[in-house]
Amino acid sequence: MIQGFNPRTGKPAGEPVAETPGADVDAAVAAAAEALPAWAALADEDRARALEAVADALDERTKELAALADEETALGDTRLTGEVGRTTGQLRLFAGVLRDGRYHDVAESPAGGGIPEIERISHPVGPVAVFAASNFPFAFSVMGGDTASALAAGCPVVVKAHEGHPSTSDLTAQIAQQALASAGAPAGVFALIHGVDAGLQLLKHPDIAAAGFTGSTAGGLALAKICAEREVPIPFFGELGAVNPVVVLPGAATQRGADIATGYAGSLTLGAGQFCTNPGLLFVPAQDEALRGAVADAVTESSGAPMLSERIYSGYEAALAEIEAHPAVTSVAAGTTGEGPWGATPRLFATTLEEFAADTEVLAKERFGPAGLLITYPSAEELLPVLAQLGGNLVGAVHGDPGDQADLATARQVIAVFQRTVGRIVWNGWPTGVAVNAAQHHGGPYPATTAPATTSVGSAAIRRWLVPVAYQGLPAELLPAQLAPAADEG
Amino acid sequence: MIQGFNPRTGKPAGEPVAETPGADVDAAVAAAAEALPAWAALADEDRARALEAVADALDERTKELAALADEETALGDTRLTGEVGRTTGQLRLFAGVLRDGRYHDVAESPAGGGIPEIERISHPVGPVAVFAASNFPFAFSVMGGDTASALAAGCPVVVKAHEGHPSTSDLTAQIAQQALASAGAPAGVFALIHGVDAGLQLLKHPDIAAAGFTGSTAGGLALAKICAEREVPIPFFGELGAVNPVVVLPGAATQRGADIATGYAGSLTLGAGQFCTNPGLLFVPAQDEALRGAVADAVTESSGAPMLSERIYSGYEAALAEIEAHPAVTSVAAGTTGEGPWGATPRLFATTLEEFAADTEVLAKERFGPAGLLITYPSAEELLPVLAQLGGNLVGAVHGDPGDQADLATARQVIAVFQRTVGRIVWNGWPTGVAVNAAQHHGGPYPATTAPATTSVGSAAIRRWLVPVAYQGLPAELLPAQLAPAADEG
Repeated sequence: MIQGFNPRTGKPAGEPVAETPGADVDAAVAAAAEALPAWAALADEDRARALEAVADALDERTKELAALADEETALGDTRLTGEVGRTTGQLRLFAGVLRDGRYHDVAESPAGGGIPEIERISHPVGPVAVFAASNFPFAFSVMGGDTASALAAGCPVVVKAHEGHPSTSDLTAQIAQQALASAGAPAGVFALIHGVDAGLQLLKHPDIAAAGFTGSTAGGLALAKICAEREVPIPFFGELGAVNPVVVLPGAATQRGADIATGYAGSLTLGAGQFCTNPGLLFVPAQDEALRGAVADAVTESSGAPMLSERIYSGYEAALAEIEAHPAVTSVAAGTTGEGPWGATPRLFATTLEEFAADTEVLAKERFGPAGLLITYPSAEELLPVLAQLGGNLVGAVHGDPGDQADLATARQVIAVFQRTVGRIVWNGWPTGVAVNAAQHHGGPYPATTAPATTSVGSAAIRRWLVPVAYQGLPAELLPAQLAPAADEG
Repeated sequence: MIQGFNPRTGKPAGEPVAETPGADVDAAVAAAAEALPAWAALADEDRARALEAVADALDERTKELAALADEETALGDTRLTGEVGRTTGQLRLFAGVLRDGRYHDVAESPAGGGIPEIERISHPVGPVAVFAASNFPFAFSVMGGDTASALAAGCPVVVKAHEGHPSTSDLTAQIAQQALASAGAPAGVFALIHGVDAGLQLLKHPDIAAAGFTGSTAGGLALAKICAEREVPIPFFGELGAVNPVVVLPGAATQRGADIATGYAGSLTLGAGQFCTNPGLLFVPAQDEALRGAVADAVTESSGAPMLSERIYSGYEAALAEIEAHPAVTSVAAGTTGEGPWGATPRLFATTLEEFAADTEVLAKERFGPAGLLITYPSAEELLPVLAQLGGNLVGAVHGDPGDQADLATARQVIAVFQRTVGRIVWNGWPTGVAVNAAQHHGGPYPATTAPATTSVGSAAIRRWLVPVAYQGLPAELLPAQLAPAADEG
């Protein structure tokens, strides 16, 4: 049985949920495979309406969903209400992507060299397995971005629920299934399963064609390995760990150090720091003592919150113990501990660039929670090679004074490094807060993701679930509908 | 030392070439990493001109290149001269892709929800390792499609030469390097290495960001495993094995059985059958004895040719021995054996759909060479589920009578199966002969490729070497040049 817990009390939240038996996992995948032709063949407009029906149905139950999720996650009503809205916004974004139609990636080349004309269009890859995340019980969970984008692409989806919010997952799935059925979607187009064993069985099922995952580096790597070692390997789109370096340049530190300090503490402690975009590393000019003091003060004044689970809390405590014991690191600030047995304490540590560079294996690793490491750098020349050696990250941020030519010159160099090491570059802002739109790229080199060319947020997320097929010399009557009119003209 | 051989005689061709020492492999990768910023920053027009300079230089030496390659491959002057043209055509195609500019995949989203505007553009993934193929000494080798598309994307390339044509590889590399240098490309943007150990070292090098491969399923899987198990895993774009099913429908068999028979034998024996697009499986209506006889006659009248190497020849002989020994298979035709010690004999085998379905593990596997398996099917109803169970293929072909409604109805069903199982669907044609253009998709589900969303032929091949970066809130002066004008307007 899978039991959710209330992070504010550590006590069980709601009734336990049964792990999905093996036979039911097989049945869910079989139903997904059977739904594939009908769901894939649905006109864009019809699939768009089905996604909107799910969005409408979730919106209608926002209060209930947010209240249930608050029981299981303690993320609070404001955040959770907003997250339901973000989730339904994602579903509607993909409805728009379908109506726009460019996602089909149509190309046409005339006959030549003895070969008839060729038309290309993308098709859904097949039934998709989605592994839900703990830290976004809606937006990266049952009906989150992976599910929305895969359904939009024409792929049936089987979601493996996260153990942290089983009841929220069940209610979301139930609402979505009813809405999909009412909108005329084929049965089997969406299913939810529970349990680690069920998830592994899902991933190994021969009818699963691709998988999406958001979570830890260790967990993601284990699943990636399974995908690579299947008899038929499948693409694995994993969003794993990130520490998201933030670089403050001297001009900005002088110009608005206080704002930067409070901005950093806010981004660091948002959601108890349980974001893949959490700014774990803050690089500040060594000469600017005022900024260091301001950041320490801001973290001291900040508040923690209950972490999502005992496991995440233990992991955070272990990470704190490791960095506290590090001889080259000093602990410079601690905020107010969050409520409950798993309440996180915001922490700020400090070290020098030299010490940091000497042990990036420990110091540059992700500490999932509100723990920041402030690194003082003596000069841009010394900073740049250290930045370049960091692993891949979802986000890199630079703070500079737009009127300071020295800041701008260094910013250009920092951006040049980030272009090869992060998925998103932020100017005078913070990594947390991921816009869901057409230009978004929520990705980055490993370990940020296992598929650096793809994004798990925004319109382009649909591309992960599409594979092209070229049609050579087919008469209009045999071509897919989207290609036929052009073939008629030819 | 690596020694090329003349397949017409089995005797050494040219001088042996030294395996690249480990230190030189490291130096080549280091030079590629150093060349990356300058090559990536080059304007599209300048990179286009560099590719055209390579194309011009290769074209100028076509005769010499083809003659040298003929010594090492025995593919013949006509084919090899044409292949140099295809290779330089590919380089010019990518010059056109650069000038077109859409490959940058630019997207812009306005500010919203407290988040500033976001612009996205793609950047080169980094230094790329390319593993050359044996069967196309130019078009899938040193300056072949993988290299051309990666260079176009802004990625420096280190090619591991195929052992089958070391001298051709060296001459190609020498011409390309001179042309690149004359065109102002940074030193290190392109290098060639020799030897299996050198290739493995290349693939494991931390500065290599992605790899392309065309070759056998076993070889490709081994390299894919290395990529997945690196400390930092990298994307591996492998084009592996394919048997490329051809389905002849009853109307077409009646209407033009003789044409189909000669067409099939021609496609099967082209280049001694050493193509990844070779039509290994021919499904014909059981009731049409005339077609079976015509195909057998056409194969009997066909001629083999020297295979590329002793190893490929032995592999072909072993595959023939296996299928000849199969109790459910009969040998129905043999053509004229090709010249030399490694001369292939075109062969045609036959079985029934039922027997085929009972042992696809042996019968549906790739036999690299001019060996076809003719499978008689009693009805479309029985054929479709067997087709659906085949592994992924680069190509699937259907022959039907466009005026025959029964053929068209069955063709629709076959195409629906192929949409999920092949990368390219051909109507009334043959899988061999791959157009290099914007709509081409040379890919397909595993084992055809390890990355089913990507193509290794045609304009879209450039996408394999690009990764997006999102820019959030950057002033125009800090944005990449291609994004800056739009930012000025906003």
